[in-house]
Amino acid sequence: MADCLFCKMVKGEIKPDIVYEDEEILAFRDISPQAPVHILVIPKQHIPTLNDLEKDHAELIGKLFLVASKVAEKEGVAQTGYRTIINCNRDAGQEVFHIHLHMIGGRSMKWPPG
Amino acid sequence: MADCLFCKMVKGEIKPDIVYEDEEILAFRDISPQAPVHILVIPKQHIPTLNDLEKDHAELIGKLFLVASKVAEKEGVAQTGYRTIINCNRDAGQEVFHIHLHMIGGRSMKWPPG
Repeated sequence: MADCLFCKMVKGEIKPDIVYEDEEILAFRDISPQAPVHILVIPKQHIPTLNDLEKDHAELIGKLFLVASKVAEKEGVAQTGYRTIINCNRDAGQEVFHIHLHMIGGRSMKWPPG
Repeated sequence: MADCLFCKMVKGEIKPDIVYEDEEILAFRDISPQAPVHILVIPKQHIPTLNDLEKDHAELIGKLFLVASKVAEKEGVAQTGYRTIINCNRDAGQEVFHIHLHMIGGRSMKWPPG
């Protein structure tokens, strides 16, 4: 998707602060962090929202969480805790229409989650 | 796990307000809803936290999101939007140590997510 911010990162046209990368997944620091640790984990494949998931995306979406927990460990927040969030559409505040998991840690979080 | 609240729901010993069920997954209304729609989606398999995920859990975790989006559609919030959250450990406020996805919708949500 030529005009997708995250696809541009996947292609290397925009350079985020990358913390993890493999063939299917990219993880990088959020430019507007909401906690001491705030990482975005995205599939390289362009899937706009959770509503666009097909059955054969299941393994890929699950892998985002394996990466999130691996990154949480590296960042030193796995044991203290972290919150993972995927927003879908307007009410949730989704701004980039390419699925992304927020992994937030390093401080105590409140409930409700926004 | 004999003393796990969600395992008791899976076994039918405690009866939640179920909105979806298949062989691997159960979804039910949160008893302390934080929005007009607040559903918990859990794997029937007992996995305590995101830190306990193994590679072969990926597809199962992804399926939680396919179910969340299906339930969001049924509940009438797929287009307006919904937030999905999985908490890990104390800082995130995880209370039941059996992985569960919160699907929250039906109102506008704030940022940061708690």
